[in-house]
Amino acid sequence: MPDKVNLADKLAQFSDQWAPRIVARYNDNEVRLVKVEGEFVWHRHENTDELFLVLEGMLDIELRDRTVTLSPGELFVVPRGVEHRPCARSGEAKLLLIDPCDLPNTGDAATATVAVVI
Amino acid sequence: MPDKVNLADKLAQFSDQWAPRIVARYNDNEVRLVKVEGEFVWHRHENTDELFLVLEGMLDIELRDRTVTLSPGELFVVPRGVEHRPCARSGEAKLLLIDPCDLPNTGDAATATVAVVI
Repeated sequence: MPDKVNLADKLAQFSDQWAPRIVARYNDNEVRLVKVEGEFVWHRHENTDELFLVLEGMLDIELRDRTVTLSPGELFVVPRGVEHRPCARSGEAKLLLIDPCDLPNTGDAATATVAVVI
Repeated sequence: MPDKVNLADKLAQFSDQWAPRIVARYNDNEVRLVKVEGEFVWHRHENTDELFLVLEGMLDIELRDRTVTLSPGELFVVPRGVEHRPCARSGEAKLLLIDPCDLPNTGDAATATVAVVI
């Protein structure tokens, strides 16, 4: 049985941005931590919702018709099929994501950064 | 599309303990907030893992062979089929749980407190 996970301890173990780490699994999902800054790419996940929880910093989740701005302690679920672009425009943000196991972070395995377990 | 969720704002909307509130859905899962104090009942969920993230306070997740103590910012996944008893022995704790939709919090619909949406 996996042990408990201290989110701050896990975040201290890496510094590269846009490179998700898997810190736990829940059923067929991965709990991922990621540090982000600047703009990601526009993408969508056709078959799954995606949960974002901001731990530190500020995150804009740009949708085609509006932008959802998240502060620490705020979460948002991007529904399946909806184009989105995460952007951290005011410095680095630290995020907790929940995705199905092996989901490509860009929506496309050819361009994705593979999440690794820490 | 549901709006973003501010966890502190949602927690401020209720005060009863051991009564989970649904604040978001992700695929077929519910993100639940719950305030707890004292001992819950021993139970298990045969067919699903259960994710606990402590937001405030301290939580003991008692297993039959050990106790996992969680502080704020720590998470633990109780594997499916494993008996557990959440206990908050040092005052109220505020938790974020992820469970499949409609999962009884006691593992038994006859004794469960039904989670409601806020």
